[in-house]
Amino acid sequence: MANSPSGDSMLDRLVRILDAFDAHNPQLTVSALSRRADVPLATAYRLVESLVAHDLLSRDAEGQVRLGLRLWELANRSASTLGLRQAALPFMEDINQLIGQNTQLSVLDRDEVLIIERLSRPGSVVNQASVAGRMPVHRTSMGMALLAFARPEAIAGYLARHQATMDATHPDFRAEIAEIRRNGYASFDGFIDPQTTGVAAPILDESGYQIAVISVVVPRDSGILNSAALALRTAARGISRALAPAS
Amino acid sequence: MANSPSGDSMLDRLVRILDAFDAHNPQLTVSALSRRADVPLATAYRLVESLVAHDLLSRDAEGQVRLGLRLWELANRSASTLGLRQAALPFMEDINQLIGQNTQLSVLDRDEVLIIERLSRPGSVVNQASVAGRMPVHRTSMGMALLAFARPEAIAGYLARHQATMDATHPDFRAEIAEIRRNGYASFDGFIDPQTTGVAAPILDESGYQIAVISVVVPRDSGILNSAALALRTAARGISRALAPAS
Repeated sequence: MANSPSGDSMLDRLVRILDAFDAHNPQLTVSALSRRADVPLATAYRLVESLVAHDLLSRDAEGQVRLGLRLWELANRSASTLGLRQAALPFMEDINQLIGQNTQLSVLDRDEVLIIERLSRPGSVVNQASVAGRMPVHRTSMGMALLAFARPEAIAGYLARHQATMDATHPDFRAEIAEIRRNGYASFDGFIDPQTTGVAAPILDESGYQIAVISVVVPRDSGILNSAALALRTAARGISRALAPAS
Repeated sequence: MANSPSGDSMLDRLVRILDAFDAHNPQLTVSALSRRADVPLATAYRLVESLVAHDLLSRDAEGQVRLGLRLWELANRSASTLGLRQAALPFMEDINQLIGQNTQLSVLDRDEVLIIERLSRPGSVVNQASVAGRMPVHRTSMGMALLAFARPEAIAGYLARHQATMDATHPDFRAEIAEIRRNGYASFDGFIDPQTTGVAAPILDESGYQIAVISVVVPRDSGILNSAALALRTAARGISRALAPAS
């Protein structure tokens, strides 16, 4: 692979360019892109030129650059998340309508919670900030539900990599995950907004290990936590069944 | 950009690698990938190695390769389609439940119809074949609705690029699109299944030009075409309103 004088491969630079765009920065000038991606300006111009020619980026009349539809198409056409999303969407709609709160579908990826789909509560503003967004594992109900129902070696691996943090924030981690497993759901006071509580139920495979998690955020002390948890567990089972190979 | 002896750039090869995966081939061995992407085997191994290291591809214990979650994340985090999808989803659910047929959301991209979202009819099997799939413009109700409500220069450009085909298949094209504009929707007998009819209504911007199209496929001669068209036009207006900047 071609390396720049700094030993930076073309692919490194490409990933940093794509990574420079996010929900808050859906479009950038080439110079902003060069800064955010830490790529020299001349290289950024050349790379953007090639990426636009391949439709991986698109450029408007004002010179603003954004991700191209072709990139979306390539990434989504055979995405491993597609079957999960399609199976989960009808159940997410049910939860969203019955509980009336934003509903998320998430997976555990590289020690973080990656949000695959989010339905906003009816009538709320369009929220695109969090689809494909990431959240910390040990500070969210989603993350704790995913971890509690992970394979033993995945739990051990996570703990080994984050031991200091977990010792500080979850000294009784083993008891905590045992309780989550017993309850069949996790709840956790709001990470972003302390006035809320997250509730999350795992979607399990046929061996009882998590594939994903479905979750809502409810007002804290609203008294609906138990019923929300039961509804989520019901939806999670429906999704598991929809995903299971027909027998 | 680094070129191989054949003048093939690294980016050309990367795009062909990503393009080799689709809904029917979500995972491939490196040798199948090398064949499908027309990349020499040794190069394919080296490229897969780098792409796996960057999490753009993932590889399982059997050596099967598939797209990585990181690629999905990068492509979706700031996708231009995200706002459209989020605004359209609740209306698509309504149509899907009320009409009881698969419901699609699509855009016009590089002279083809690109499917952004699809909801399967309740109870039908999970269908992941068509999200991010493509359909021909002039043989589908989606494509004809998108074309009829496109900007004049976009219509002229499409006709110029596809004149022979359009002369053969749509000799009265101008009259056809005038009728679609008058009706506010397009219908077209099934491209894949002749026993069905596609019905599509455009989602318009504030100048009256199309942004996207919402469509269903109904059984031919079922007598519900007119009511389906009215429901789709209603949903399309709701989506347009949800997309319009608050005034």
